[in-house]
Order: sequence, then C-alpha cells, then structure tokens
Amino acid sequence: MRALTVIPGRKHSLALTEMPEPEPSPGDLIVDALAVGVCGTDKEIAEAEYGTAPPMADRLVIGHESLGRVREAPDGSGFAPGDLVVGVVRRPDPVPCGACAIGRFDECRNGGYVERGIKQLDGYASEVWTVEPEYAVKLDPGLERVGMLMEPTSVVAKAWDQIDKVGGRSWFEPKRVLVTGAGPIGLLAALIGVQRGLEVHVLDLVAEGPKPELVTALGAVYHHEGIEAVVKEGEPDIVIEATGATSLVADAVAATGSFGVVCLTGVSPEGRNVNVDVGALNREMVLENDAIVGSVNANLGHYATAAEVLREADPGWLGRMITRRVPLEHFDQAFDLGPEHVKAVIELERS
Amino acid sequence: MRALTVIPGRKHSLALTEMPEPEPSPGDLIVDALAVGVCGTDKEIAEAEYGTAPPMADRLVIGHESLGRVREAPDGSGFAPGDLVVGVVRRPDPVPCGACAIGRFDECRNGGYVERGIKQLDGYASEVWTVEPEYAVKLDPGLERVGMLMEPTSVVAKAWDQIDKVGGRSWFEPKRVLVTGAGPIGLLAALIGVQRGLEVHVLDLVAEGPKPELVTALGAVYHHEGIEAVVKEGEPDIVIEATGATSLVADAVAATGSFGVVCLTGVSPEGRNVNVDVGALNREMVLENDAIVGSVNANLGHYATAAEVLREADPGWLGRMITRRVPLEHFDQAFDLGPEHVKAVIELERS
Repeated sequence: MRALTVIPGRKHSLALTEMPEPEPSPGDLIVDALAVGVCGTDKEIAEAEYGTAPPMADRLVIGHESLGRVREAPDGSGFAPGDLVVGVVRRPDPVPCGACAIGRFDECRNGGYVERGIKQLDGYASEVWTVEPEYAVKLDPGLERVGMLMEPTSVVAKAWDQIDKVGGRSWFEPKRVLVTGAGPIGLLAALIGVQRGLEVHVLDLVAEGPKPELVTALGAVYHHEGIEAVVKEGEPDIVIEATGATSLVADAVAATGSFGVVCLTGVSPEGRNVNVDVGALNREMVLENDAIVGSVNANLGHYATAAEVLREADPGWLGRMITRRVPLEHFDQAFDLGPEHVKAVIELERS
Repeated sequence: MRALTVIPGRKHSLALTEMPEPEPSPGDLIVDALAVGVCGTDKEIAEAEYGTAPPMADRLVIGHESLGRVREAPDGSGFAPGDLVVGVVRRPDPVPCGACAIGRFDECRNGGYVERGIKQLDGYASEVWTVEPEYAVKLDPGLERVGMLMEPTSVVAKAWDQIDKVGGRSWFEPKRVLVTGAGPIGLLAALIGVQRGLEVHVLDLVAEGPKPELVTALGAVYHHEGIEAVVKEGEPDIVIEATGATSLVADAVAATGSFGVVCLTGVSPEGRNVNVDVGALNREMVLENDAIVGSVNANLGHYATAAEVLREADPGWLGRMITRRVPLEHFDQAFDLGPEHVKAVIELERS
C-alpha cells in the first residue's frame, strides 16, 4: 500500500512510500482509508520542526485527521464492515499519570503519551490502517465527504469545554463571542458558538472568498478590519484565538469584558517578540478578573461531543470548508494553501 | 470624631478631618474603630490616582481594611456590644446585574457597585463607623490585634477559590506553589497554601528582615535569587503573582508545569512596556494547556473562608506581619514603607 511518510527531523523528506499493509493486533479494526485532513502540525512535521518516528523506525506515517471505512471488525467490537470511522490521535502512557488513569489523556502530566501521525505511532495517511475499537469513533453515514473534520472538531469541542469550565469560575452567561482566525479551528469554533445560540463574530485578514462566505452562511458576522472595529460594537464575553498571531493574543485579552475568557488554540512560532504593555495587561486582567486558557488535543469525551456537532451541522457547509481536495500522488498541493483557503484534504480511497 | 479623608483626584489632600459621628440607618451596627490596614489601593487614592467621593461630598473617608468593636447592635442583628467586627468593602448596584443578584457582587458586570473607602461610600478610617449587619463579619476575640488582616485575607481566599475552579477544568492535584511577592497578599496566600498542606515557595527581592523570617516560620521556603532558581528545583503547579511587577508576570506563566494555573492579584501601573516573546508564551500556554486568571475583591463567602483561615493561623505570626503600627495623628508614616516592611496599620482606638 501507499503511505505518506517523513523522516522526522529531516527537511524535504516528506514522500509517498510503498509499504506492507499493517498487521492488526488482536481485536483491532482493519480500515480502508478515505482521506486525511492536513493541518499546521502536519506542516511543522513536514518542515522537520516536530514529530518522532516509532521506535526502531526511520520514517513516520503522518496524518492524524483521519477518515476511513471499516473493512474488518471483530465480533463484539461495536463496529461492522462498511461503518464510517475516525481514529483517535492520542494514546496514554502505559504507566499512566493521574489524569491519564481517569481517561483524560489529553491532560497527560508525565509527557509519556504517544500520538498517531505525530509522536512515536504511525498515523492515518496510508491506504489501509488499523485501530483499536476503543480508540475508534463511528460517524454518521452522511459525513462520508467531511468526516476528516472530526479531529479538528474534537480539538474545538475541548476548547469550548475548557471555556465552560473556566467561565464557570464565576457567574457566566455569555452572549457575544469573538473568534480570531477563519481557518478550520476558527470556523468550527464559530459553528459551535452558533449551535449554542451565541452572537458570533469572526475576524480574519482576507476580504473575500470562502472565509467570509462560510462565516455569513453560518449566521455569524465576518470582520476583516481589525479587532478594534469588532470590539467597538460591544466587548465579547469569550474570545477564541485561532491564529497564533502574536499581536492578536494581547489584543484579544484586552478586548474582553469583565470576567472575560480568552481561549488560546493557535500554536505560534517562538521568537516573535512584541513590545507589550504588560503592566496595563496585568492590571486589566486583575481588575476585570479576566482569564486566559490554552487548549490543545482532546479526549474521548470531546470526540463524542464533536460527533454530535458534526451530525447537527449542515453537511454542505462542512463540505465548503474543504477548499482543496487532492489525490494522494499530489499530496504536496495540500501543504501549500494561500490565506483564502480553509482546509486541504488528501484523498486516500483506492479506485 | 476624627477621620482620615482625601479629596479624590487631588494630590496631597490626605488629611485628618474632624467630622460628626455617622448617623446609623435603621438596623445598622455602631462600631468603635480599633484600626485600619493600609494597602496599595489606599496609596493610589492618596496619590489621586483612584477613588470617588460619596455623592454631594468633596471628601472621601478612606480605609477598607477595617477592624472595630461593636458599641450598639439592634436586637436580632446577630451582634452584641463588645463583638470584634470587620465591615465588608463592596455593596452591589441597587439594580443588580446577574452576578450581583446571586450575591456574587465581587463579579459585578455592570460596574454599578460601590465600595467603602474607595468608591462613593465613606470608608472605615474614622473613630466611629456604622455598618449593616449583613455586611459585617464577626471575628474570633483572639484576633483583636490582627483582625484588620481580614479584608486582605478575603481577597486571597477569593484568589484561591478562583485557582481551585480554574484548576478544576482538568485533573488537578497540585503539590507545589510559588508565590511571587512577600507583601501581605503574598504572605497570606502562602499561609493558605501551607494550611492546605502544599509545598510553598515565596519569592521576593529582599535578602533579610521580616519577610524571610515570616516565610520560614510558616514552614515555607523563601527565595530571593530570581524565579529561575526556584523553578530549577521543580515547576510549580500554581503561581500566585502578588507583586504586579511586569517582568515577573510573563516569567510566572513560563514557570508552571502542564495545566499550570497562574493567578494574578497584583495591580500594576500602566505604561510598563516589556519586550515579550508572545509567540513562545502563546505556544507554551496552548501546548501545556496553561491558564492565567486575574482576581480582585471578594464576596461574603470569601470573608467567611477568611475568618476560618485567620482562626486557624498562629496569632503571633499574623501579628509579626504588621511591621508598623502608627497612631491616627501619624497616619503619614503608614504610607511610606520600605521594601523590607509588610503591613502598616493605623490605630484608631480612642484612649
């Protein structure tokens, strides 16, 4: 079978590799891949900034935004051939920390977790893959074209869960949400905001194209004139920062009202120094009792929430989020999107 | 009677003023003052940077860290003459916001609250004051010399409450706490940490004097060599920032382990620009799921917690926190402490 692999730490090593189909462990599902989504982490791995190969291996199969169809499922696995399925990314340390021991492996404290397509486990960008049923999530059959959005949706479901919990430190009846960045994470965050009945504003740089169209179609408000213009209409109770753009992070904190919650989801490069009035920012955070929380990854509970979110969403809208679909042999085109694009997907289904 | 008053907004207006004893409203307690503590907010008011006089008045009686002895108490008030009593600082807006409506006036969203000694209500720095019984807290008789620490303790109790709630967004079994700043807020935060059985580290600038002695007497570890030296021994799960020093705020965030909580309690002046690697900070916050929360003020629940904290503490240790006691006529000496000092108190008891 063909797989998309990389030699972690070596630039320009991303390549299509011929390799044997994986051997299922007892109990595993065997899955024919349909597609993988490509995100910023994949780009970091391709650029040799991130990623670890499995023990004894040189190459890592990338891909963590999976979608496939079950080929073989053991009796009692809860799955049947033909089921649409997504594989979970993270597995806890075999010697679990306190968080992993209660199934919250997204909160791992000892760093001993492994991640498919990222850290020490092959990912899902291969024509066939296997997965333990307890780390597989069944999807509604209507999501055949968009189910690879499940993993980013689980990340966003966790972000909202963290917002709820941090918001709940005080009286919390949010009305207005600002999402910075109309990429996949930002749009999925906006989707959940709209599903919750909140007034959602999305800020990005581009003036036209799929991003403003997707935001408007959702019933949210699109902005591209900078954060001040948004805040002038009313301070948001929640800001979800989904760009990692350094200047926006400080602005986002200043933008909230009292007891505001800023959730950071965008991973930014280091070495972006900004001259910040930390005195004013600290003063504002104390006097307004503001909170900032970072959020990454997701556990099985968040995948379950994500499956709900996708089931309730308009599949046509989700489909329009995927602004580029490329066959496996043209994988490089999925790593080279302009700012007007949202999500690139690599198709893996054998014809 | 004599009172310490200021013309808000006018520098050098802090003065001892002769004024009539306050008229109690029906149901009020009449209280003979024992002392008030002086904090950074009082200094800001004295420097005309903060504070609002009551409607129709030029001068504001300052003082919000109160302590007095009940002179007269209406039947059914729950108080009796001779009781040691502290007055609560904040009152909710008469047209309450959602938070104020459920008694969480420290979370006021409409800004319509008033505060004794700070905003539109006379404070407690007068020889006699009145207070509504529902905003009065009875203290253990053993706290006669130190009960004015009740208000800062309530602020710290709220900070810990916020840490618990924000910490509880994830699996949370904190072991190690770093408190930056060994002033009253920092020391009281350390006291609560020790009462909870945590390993407490306190960082300040001074090398000797009451601060290291108080920290060591508590069973906590004192540091004055900078934050890196503390973190080298192990990352704290919680940082309580109680200096407002701008450079420390960013360092505090970087210092925590995964799912760390940084609670900001120190109000810093604006205009302290620092060149911060916001990219690295944001990346760290996302990948480690860190949180920062600002906390100020306290509600009645936090006062109740504070009363517990003070009852369990060693009164001798609390007394040593008060490194300067001055009679009312020498109030100016309470506004001029060197960095080795902890807390100044103005004595108000009539001889």
